[in-house]
Amino acid sequence: MVEPFDVVDLIRAKRDHGALSTAQIEWMIDAYTRGYIADEQMSAMTMAIFLNGMEREEIRDLTLAMIASGERLDFSGLTKKTTDKHSTGGVGDKITLPLAPLVASFGVAVPQLSGRGLGHTGGTLDKLESIPGWRASLTPEEFSAQLESVGAVICAAGATLAPADGKLYALRDITGTVEAIPLIASSIMSKKIAEGTAALVLDVKFGSGAFLQDPAKGRELAETMVRLGTDAGVATVALLTNMNVPLGLAIGNANEVRESIEVLSGGGPADVVELTVALAREMLELAGVHDADVEAALANGRAMDTWRRMITAQGGNPDVVLPEARETHAVRASRSGVLVRQDALPFGIAAWRLGAGRARQQDPVQHAAGIDLRAKPGDSVTEGQVLFTLSTNDAARFDRALEAVDGAYEIADPGTPIATGGPLIQDRITA
Amino acid sequence: MVEPFDVVDLIRAKRDHGALSTAQIEWMIDAYTRGYIADEQMSAMTMAIFLNGMEREEIRDLTLAMIASGERLDFSGLTKKTTDKHSTGGVGDKITLPLAPLVASFGVAVPQLSGRGLGHTGGTLDKLESIPGWRASLTPEEFSAQLESVGAVICAAGATLAPADGKLYALRDITGTVEAIPLIASSIMSKKIAEGTAALVLDVKFGSGAFLQDPAKGRELAETMVRLGTDAGVATVALLTNMNVPLGLAIGNANEVRESIEVLSGGGPADVVELTVALAREMLELAGVHDADVEAALANGRAMDTWRRMITAQGGNPDVVLPEARETHAVRASRSGVLVRQDALPFGIAAWRLGAGRARQQDPVQHAAGIDLRAKPGDSVTEGQVLFTLSTNDAARFDRALEAVDGAYEIADPGTPIATGGPLIQDRITA
Repeated sequence: MVEPFDVVDLIRAKRDHGALSTAQIEWMIDAYTRGYIADEQMSAMTMAIFLNGMEREEIRDLTLAMIASGERLDFSGLTKKTTDKHSTGGVGDKITLPLAPLVASFGVAVPQLSGRGLGHTGGTLDKLESIPGWRASLTPEEFSAQLESVGAVICAAGATLAPADGKLYALRDITGTVEAIPLIASSIMSKKIAEGTAALVLDVKFGSGAFLQDPAKGRELAETMVRLGTDAGVATVALLTNMNVPLGLAIGNANEVRESIEVLSGGGPADVVELTVALAREMLELAGVHDADVEAALANGRAMDTWRRMITAQGGNPDVVLPEARETHAVRASRSGVLVRQDALPFGIAAWRLGAGRARQQDPVQHAAGIDLRAKPGDSVTEGQVLFTLSTNDAARFDRALEAVDGAYEIADPGTPIATGGPLIQDRITA
Repeated sequence: MVEPFDVVDLIRAKRDHGALSTAQIEWMIDAYTRGYIADEQMSAMTMAIFLNGMEREEIRDLTLAMIASGERLDFSGLTKKTTDKHSTGGVGDKITLPLAPLVASFGVAVPQLSGRGLGHTGGTLDKLESIPGWRASLTPEEFSAQLESVGAVICAAGATLAPADGKLYALRDITGTVEAIPLIASSIMSKKIAEGTAALVLDVKFGSGAFLQDPAKGRELAETMVRLGTDAGVATVALLTNMNVPLGLAIGNANEVRESIEVLSGGGPADVVELTVALAREMLELAGVHDADVEAALANGRAMDTWRRMITAQGGNPDVVLPEARETHAVRASRSGVLVRQDALPFGIAAWRLGAGRARQQDPVQHAAGIDLRAKPGDSVTEGQVLFTLSTNDAARFDRALEAVDGAYEIADPGTPIATGGPLIQDRITA
C-alpha cells in the first residue's frame, strides 16, 4: 500500500508546536498498530506530545483513532441502563469493589472492565483475585449474561478493546511519557468509550499518592476527559479527589477486600464510605435513578446481596476466609500526640515492596501482603500504640518497606494543623 | 552487571528540564552502544534534548562519551602538523576537494575523514568516486603513509571512530531529531576529535540550502563546536557562511570534481575560490604556517601537483575523462534582465532527484547526474539564454527535478535588489 504520510514529517510538525490533522492522527495510530511506524518513532512523537501538548481536536482525534483500532462493545440488547466508573488510581483505592454492587443493586448495569496494578497503585483485579476461585476473565457471553442478571461485573478488559492504547501505554511506560495529559486522557477514555457504557463517572485523583500530584493538573485531566466522553455521547461527570493520604485503613489486596466487605456491611472507614456514596449517587443520577438512598442500600444489606451474587457468578465463594500473611510487623507510636501527616506515596511504595504490587507486568502479587493502618491523620495516639502493621509472606521484605515509610508520618502536639491538603472530594466537573 | 542508573529516570530528568551529570551521560552512551538502552528509549531522550536543550557541560560530556565509545587516532608519529576542515554541508559544496591538496601543498597534513551524502546535500566521497578507480577505503597503514608522503588524504571514516554517534545519528534521522544543536555539535565534534587532528576549521553554513536556515542558529552551532574543540585541546576556528545560493556553478558529483580541478588550475567560480582561500588560510594559520600565499599555490600549479598525487595514491587517474550523463535538459531565460534570486535548497533537491544524491544509505548515486548553472545572482541574462542544464542517465527524472526548481529563481529589471542574504563569509568565530 502507498502510505499517505511520512511519520518523520508528523514528528517534526509536533516537535515544532504544530497540530496534527484528523487524517494524520488516524493514519498514525493505524500505522503504529500494524507496525509500519516503529516504536522509536512513536516514542519521539509521544515525547513531543508530552512537551508541546495537543489541541482539543487532536486529543479527540487520538481517542477516536484508538477506539477505531479495535472492537467496540454494544449494550443495546441489555434491558438495563449502563453506568460505569473509572479512577485514575491511588493508594488504598478499593472503591470499585463496594461501588459496583451498590450501584447495580438499584437495577442498573455496571460493566467494570478493570486492569491489574503496576507500581505503587494497586489493581482492582489483583484485589479480587485474593478471593479463591474468583475468575477475572469472562467470555463476551458470560459478561453480557451477568450484566443482565446481576448487574455488576468486574472483569479483565480483553485485548480487543483499543489495542493501539495497549501498545502505546507499554511504550510510554518505558520512555518516561506516562504523565502527559493528552495521552492519559485518550488512553483512559478510548477504553471506556469502546467498552460501550452510556454513562461514566471519573474519580480523578491528585496528591502524593496519585500519578498527577498537582491539583491543577488533575483538574485539567478531569476537564479533558469529561469533554472527550461528552463529545463521544457518553454522559460523563468527574469528581476531583484528594490522594495525599491513603484511602481507608487497608492497603494491599485481601485486606482491601475485607475493608470493602465492611463497607457493604454498613461499616467501614468514613473516607471510603464518603467516596463510595458520592460516586454511587453520580453514577445513578447519570443512569436516570434520581434521589437513590444509597446509604440505606449499604445499611440494609441490599448492596451486599449484589456483591455476593457478583462474586459467586465469577466462581468465587463470598464466605471464604481470605488469605492471611505469614509474617507481620507492627510499627508503634514513638510519642503521644496527634497524627498530623500520613503521606500516601510512601505507604503505597511500602505495600508494593511487601509484595502487594508488581514491578513488571508478568510478576505475581502476594494477595495477603500489605499494610493495615490503625490511625489516620487527626487521630490522637498514645506512645507505644500500634500505628500500622506490615504484612508479607517474606520477612526479608520488611527492611525496605520500613525504609519507604521512614519520615512518611508525623505525630505532633494537639492543635498542630493536620496536613492532608483539604477535603477528600474537592470538586465536581461536568460538561 | 548492575546498572548504576535507570534510563527512565534520566529521560524524565531531561523531560523536566533537568541537567544530566557526567556519570549519567557516560553511562547512557555506553549502555546505548551495548544495546542495554533501547532505541525507543533513546529516541524519547533525543526528543527531550531537542526541545529542552543541554547545558554546556552536558554537551561536552556527551561528546567525550561518544569519543570514548570507540577508537581515537593518534598522529604523534607524524613529522607534519595536522589540520582539518569540516563543513556542515550545502548545495554545490565541493570545497574539500581543492582545499585539502592546497593546504597540504604547504607541508602540513590534512586527514580528511569524510562521509557519503544523504538527502539534498552531497557527500565528498560520492564526488571523488566519480573518478574511476579512486578508492575511498584505506587501511590505517595506508592512511598514515599517505599523510606522511602526500599530506592530503580524503577517505571514508572507519566504523571504529565514535560508533555511538553512528548509531545515534541513524536513530535521529528517522525520529525527527536531526536539527538539535547539542546533538549536531557533539556528533560532528566527537568524530573530528577522535580523528586526532591538532587543528580544525569549521565551515558552518546557514540559509535555505543548509540544514540550519537561521543565521542565529548557525552562530550558536559554530560557537558550541568551537568551544568543544578548544576544550578538547584541538585548535578550532569557525567561519559562518551563507548557503542561500548554490556554491559555485556545479551541483552533482563528476561536475563538482571538474569545477574543483578548475580551481586547482587557477580558475573556477569566484565564490568557490573565495571560500577555498579563506578556509586554507585559517587551516594553515592554526598549523603554524603564517602568511601563506595560497592564491599563488593555486595559480602556479603547486596545489594541483598535490591533488594529482593524492588522487593517484588512492588508485585514481587524475587525467581520466570524467563520466558524462546520457541525457541533458537546458532551462532558458523567459525574459531579459538580471538574475536576482537562485535558492539553494530547490536546486539541491533537483540535483538529488536527477540521481546525484540518495534517499537511503544503501542507494547508489549517478556520478554524472546533476545541474550546471550558467548564471548566478547578479548576472545579466538575455531572453532565451541557457540559465542551467540538468543532467541524468534517466530522462524520466527531468519532470520531478523541474518541479523542484519551479519558482526557485527570478529574473527582474536591472536595479532590483539581489536576494542572496548578504556576503558569502559572514563571520569568523574563535574561542
